[in-house]
Amino acid sequence: MSTATEAPTRNRPKLDELDLPLGKRVRLHRILYEHGVGNGTLLALPIDQGIEHGPIDFLPNPPAAAPDYQWELAVEGGYNAIACHWGLARQYMKKYAGKVPLILKINGKTNIPSDDEAISSPTATVQDAVSLGADAVGYTLYVGSPRQDEDISRLQRVREACELWGMPLVVWSYPRGAAIEAKGGRDSLYAVDYAARLAHELGADIIKLNVPKKSDKDSKMPQKYQDIEWDYESGAARVVSSARKSMVLFSGGSKISDEDLMDKARTVMEVGATGLIFGRNMWQRPMDEALAMTKRIKELLAKHPA
Amino acid sequence: MSTATEAPTRNRPKLDELDLPLGKRVRLHRILYEHGVGNGTLLALPIDQGIEHGPIDFLPNPPAAAPDYQWELAVEGGYNAIACHWGLARQYMKKYAGKVPLILKINGKTNIPSDDEAISSPTATVQDAVSLGADAVGYTLYVGSPRQDEDISRLQRVREACELWGMPLVVWSYPRGAAIEAKGGRDSLYAVDYAARLAHELGADIIKLNVPKKSDKDSKMPQKYQDIEWDYESGAARVVSSARKSMVLFSGGSKISDEDLMDKARTVMEVGATGLIFGRNMWQRPMDEALAMTKRIKELLAKHPA
Amino acid sequence: MSTATEAPTRNRPKLDELDLPLGKRVRLHRILYEHGVGNGTLLALPIDQGIEHGPIDFLPNPPAAAPDYQWELAVEGGYNAIACHWGLARQYMKKYAGKVPLILKINGKTNIPSDDEAISSPTATVQDAVSLGADAVGYTLYVGSPRQDEDISRLQRVREACELWGMPLVVWSYPRGAAIEAKGGRDSLYAVDYAARLAHELGADIIKLNVPKKSDKDSKMPQKYQDIEWDYESGAARVVSSARKSMVLFSGGSKISDEDLMDKARTVMEVGATGLIFGRNMWQRPMDEALAMTKRIKELLAKHPA
Amino acid sequence: MSTATEAPTRNRPKLDELDLPLGKRVRLHRILYEHGVGNGTLLALPIDQGIEHGPIDFLPNPPAAAPDYQWELAVEGGYNAIACHWGLARQYMKKYAGKVPLILKINGKTNIPSDDEAISSPTATVQDAVSLGADAVGYTLYVGSPRQDEDISRLQRVREACELWGMPLVVWSYPRGAAIEAKGGRDSLYAVDYAARLAHELGADIIKLNVPKKSDKDSKMPQKYQDIEWDYESGAARVVSSARKSMVLFSGGSKISDEDLMDKARTVMEVGATGLIFGRNMWQRPMDEALAMTKRIKELLAKHPA
Amino acid sequence: MSTATEAPTRNRPKLDELDLPLGKRVRLHRILYEHGVGNGTLLALPIDQGIEHGPIDFLPNPPAAAPDYQWELAVEGGYNAIACHWGLARQYMKKYAGKVPLILKINGKTNIPSDDEAISSPTATVQDAVSLGADAVGYTLYVGSPRQDEDISRLQRVREACELWGMPLVVWSYPRGAAIEAKGGRDSLYAVDYAARLAHELGADIIKLNVPKKSDKDSKMPQKYQDIEWDYESGAARVVSSARKSMVLFSGGSKISDEDLMDKARTVMEVGATGLIFGRNMWQRPMDEALAMTKRIKELLAKHPA
Repeated sequence: MSTATEAPTRNRPKLDELDLPLGKRVRLHRILYEHGVGNGTLLALPIDQGIEHGPIDFLPNPPAAAPDYQWELAVEGGYNAIACHWGLARQYMKKYAGKVPLILKINGKTNIPSDDEAISSPTATVQDAVSLGADAVGYTLYVGSPRQDEDISRLQRVREACELWGMPLVVWSYPRGAAIEAKGGRDSLYAVDYAARLAHELGADIIKLNVPKKSDKDSKMPQKYQDIEWDYESGAARVVSSARKSMVLFSGGSKISDEDLMDKARTVMEVGATGLIFGRNMWQRPMDEALAMTKRIKELLAKHPA
Repeated sequence: MSTATEAPTRNRPKLDELDLPLGKRVRLHRILYEHGVGNGTLLALPIDQGIEHGPIDFLPNPPAAAPDYQWELAVEGGYNAIACHWGLARQYMKKYAGKVPLILKINGKTNIPSDDEAISSPTATVQDAVSLGADAVGYTLYVGSPRQDEDISRLQRVREACELWGMPLVVWSYPRGAAIEAKGGRDSLYAVDYAARLAHELGADIIKLNVPKKSDKDSKMPQKYQDIEWDYESGAARVVSSARKSMVLFSGGSKISDEDLMDKARTVMEVGATGLIFGRNMWQRPMDEALAMTKRIKELLAKHPA
Repeated sequence: MSTATEAPTRNRPKLDELDLPLGKRVRLHRILYEHGVGNGTLLALPIDQGIEHGPIDFLPNPPAAAPDYQWELAVEGGYNAIACHWGLARQYMKKYAGKVPLILKINGKTNIPSDDEAISSPTATVQDAVSLGADAVGYTLYVGSPRQDEDISRLQRVREACELWGMPLVVWSYPRGAAIEAKGGRDSLYAVDYAARLAHELGADIIKLNVPKKSDKDSKMPQKYQDIEWDYESGAARVVSSARKSMVLFSGGSKISDEDLMDKARTVMEVGATGLIFGRNMWQRPMDEALAMTKRIKELLAKHPA
Repeated sequence: MSTATEAPTRNRPKLDELDLPLGKRVRLHRILYEHGVGNGTLLALPIDQGIEHGPIDFLPNPPAAAPDYQWELAVEGGYNAIACHWGLARQYMKKYAGKVPLILKINGKTNIPSDDEAISSPTATVQDAVSLGADAVGYTLYVGSPRQDEDISRLQRVREACELWGMPLVVWSYPRGAAIEAKGGRDSLYAVDYAARLAHELGADIIKLNVPKKSDKDSKMPQKYQDIEWDYESGAARVVSSARKSMVLFSGGSKISDEDLMDKARTVMEVGATGLIFGRNMWQRPMDEALAMTKRIKELLAKHPA
Repeated sequence: MSTATEAPTRNRPKLDELDLPLGKRVRLHRILYEHGVGNGTLLALPIDQGIEHGPIDFLPNPPAAAPDYQWELAVEGGYNAIACHWGLARQYMKKYAGKVPLILKINGKTNIPSDDEAISSPTATVQDAVSLGADAVGYTLYVGSPRQDEDISRLQRVREACELWGMPLVVWSYPRGAAIEAKGGRDSLYAVDYAARLAHELGADIIKLNVPKKSDKDSKMPQKYQDIEWDYESGAARVVSSARKSMVLFSGGSKISDEDLMDKARTVMEVGATGLIFGRNMWQRPMDEALAMTKRIKELLAKHPA
């Protein structure tokens, strides 16, 4: 079926065209148009790795273990948002309050137990986000996990609270667990594409995705996905398309070379991503290098007004 | 026992003859008599496949990945209802609000983990349906699953909320799980017949069923079911009969040829179904073909006033 | 220990002598003295088999698949009560409202998954029973199941609601699960005797029991039970005695010959049962035969005033 | 370490010296000083065996199957309290109301499934105890069970309700489950000693313990417990001491000879027990013998004023 | 990466510089500046071993089984706080009320079942702490346990209640469970470092840690941790640093020699710990020795004003 292998195209969702309650509209406007480049793109700095991976991620650049490091980078570099858990927000944000929007992560887990039945645990509520003056909450959904029943149930309650309080909902939509591994793995085109659509149908305003990767396990994907011809760009385009009217952020993952990072950033912005969420690729550098890299990324984003 | 193998006959439930609270009566009247053919039949267009199967179902007809495609088909084709999850309703329905009734699906799951212990997870509440102006909610019950305890418990609470708010309850009554497979499989006459009766006793206003199919595993059914002589028509008739005063919708399942689809539709309407719920068989076509097919189906339904 | 093998004797509980809140007293009076024979005996017609066994139970007499069949039998035959789930009550009872008391079954399960860890799931609440004008609720307790923790917990909450609303509580007290099978089986004297006492201590007003049966597995019972010499009559007498001030109903189970049924009914009434709950033995017959059999049973009950 | 093997000594807790809310003080005074010997000792008659063991316990003395038997024994023998579940209290207590205090057992389980993961299930609430005019509640804690998380959580909520309503809390503190068996067994000195301290720290006012027993499995206890030299008396003394300011009741267990029973009773009272809870050793006898034995026990208790 | 192996340095968190609600500020001030040395250091005496280990810990010094022993030591020795469960606080604290602050432990477990899936169970609430006049609550988090989902969820609710009531939150952050053992064990640098950061991000005001230890299982740690060169001092420094603005208490663990204890105490204070929590190392001694040792420790703490 030749149509199936054509890369889908689409326009990036525009805030004005979305059907949203006022509170979400106000807060998204603040993130997208009053910070960062200010053209509807989104550059976020995450600092949830201390929970997700442990302090191991700070070993390459010890000063980054101090959350002030990230906040200073976010403020000075002019990010659209910083994403972290309650424990960091309440102790470090005072000094930077109002200078950079907060995406409050409201669930998390360590990576110590196996991911076979992954589920992320509540660390805060939507009300906490309101109290802290946050402009969004971040919820991690482990798509396809055997514990998806609890996960989807929790997301449903979070989604309702977001609707009530006008709080934008960012879903980290991550394929994960034994069943995903048996069907091609967490980064397969099949898995990421499913994750994009699922989060959209469950009510995400913004979806954080990883760019799909080819792997040895691709032969375990459903046949229709094996039949698709794709590369980095068209894979990214496909999953952006599956996210429909939810805006998409792509992550950088573990640290890569600057040119690779720029290439990837350029590609995903061209296929319709709304923005980027770069953590280790930013703060695992000395501050001056991180600011320089931030500047390059923002120059790229400036070319992609919504 | 010869009586056991006679195909049961019955009249289709008529709205006026059912004992229902006013809110349900108003909303069912809107679905059955103010939309579609308007003669008490029901043609529904589901678009929950993005959660249940993932975007894989849109590969054969990429434009169908955009929910506007289904809404346009539903409005232009004059369907009685469209069925989808909250995330789609809130982003795409504004333009079509009031033009086609909404059946809000309030639970769902991915098909990534095994179905051995299937359960569908809450994605919305009955109150959400009220808020969205929906005319019914859709609940998927996995009949015979080892997790039936949770499933029946949840359905009981949904049923109560439906009674309170006057919201019609459509139950997708699907045999599923390891125990069902051991007794003949999900599409066996035994399984579907049980599913019909169970949903009726649990308070479904409308039941979505698949037409039973013969298979190699029929010899695992209880003896009394093995003794029944049946074909497509009498099998459908039997399960319609077991649904009693609950109206029955039959699905089309994966895409089949037009003549097969028309034959099947004709047969199930003749044995007392209230209507049809055709998703992939409709929207996996170009729009003109989908509208043409819709027209043929509606001509058929016109011959079956309640 | 010779005393241990003597069959216990006791008087049947009399409503006037029980210590009950007014609401329970009113409703039990309605069931016991204003319907049926009206002498304090109880003949109940259950129609919960559609959930517990599926429509398979209607195959021998297809007209019985229509709940009107049972309601007509119950009204015309003059039963003390009909027992069914919410879904049937709300759709069929209007026509017969007030003519025969309702025992609303408030939990149920299919028999599709294994009974090894049996638990019955909520299908309605005590408040539903109040709303429907029911005169009792029916709760199924799986005595000895590995999931007894949840089961007893749920029964405790139901019992409290019954106390609050003055709703009589009928407990279907059924030994069930892997552990019961390992100690002699669900119909063993040990198991049924335990079930009778347990339900009494947990607050049942009426207990539905099966008459104990001898089997090959009796040698797995505790020694003291193996030492008891008993027959059908003294077995029934023993379990009636263990139910103490809770009234006992015995079931008929699957369909047996008329004389066997009458013999069994006579025996259990003589040893102190308050009544009988006959489903398949009644409605798996043509209506005239069912009414005739009902008449015979009621003549028997007339000889056993409380 | 020689100190470790010295039997600890202590004074029995005196009501006046305990730090308790008024409601608990009033109710404990009623149990300890207005009933029984009236000198601060406590003789309780339990009748929860119908749930814990089933009617098997009544086989040796069939009249004892009637709860009136125990209540008559408790009133005529002048016990400090009778302990039973809600179902018995509500049906039999009216006649004896106010004549003997009630300890309402608020959880229970059958002994049919394995005890490997033992947990006792709620059968009533602290509010039920208030409503019934009870003077204490009884909660069974399975110390060391793999399900201890749920058990301790439930006890915590019960303890809070007891504090709120001024209801004394009696904890049946029973080592149980696979892990206990692997460390010496449920009656080992290690296990009972742990059970005593645990219940005390969790807020028990009174703790029901079994006297530790030596067994073949003692070599599985932690070394420090193997090093202790102890006998019946010093074992009992040790666990009484570990219960600290919680009063201790010892049980009689299964029926033993009268002289053994008197010896054991004398011993435990001498080492600081507050009282005794004798069920089968009392009511598995003809009434006159039970009253005679009760009289002997009370003469003993009279020698142990608080 | 040479930076990775440099021991991090940091200043100890100062109360005045932390961002805390008033209630927490008042209570922490009371603990840190109105008791103990009064210079912002913290010496706590825990007495939760009766639940965590059982009375076995009192065998080496039997008088310590009486909680008065610890309270007298705490008051006379001038500790900053005593930490225990509700059952002890309510019975023993009256005499010492106001003389030494209370850290109410609000969860606990026995060490009888395997720690493979460790979780600690609620024994009290934050409201209980308020009622008792406590100045902090103590919550045990089993970092990396397969049951971390429930554990983090519970901690989240406790953290919220602490914020609401202004109650300081002390987290006993203990790596535990099968997955931790597979990655180097509970005392590995990797595990303790993770535990420190995790508790900080989850909102702990104070974190109780064990000093990391080298072991045979270090080769199971992630490579980056194997690459770090460290000793007792730099290991302690690292985990103190990872706790960031949460104050750190180190424990003494099982009893060791006095000079070892002083050495360890000196070291951890020098690297930024706020204080010490010594239980068995204190109260497993005769009172005079315990007081003498307390005096030595306090002299050390006096050298470390905040």
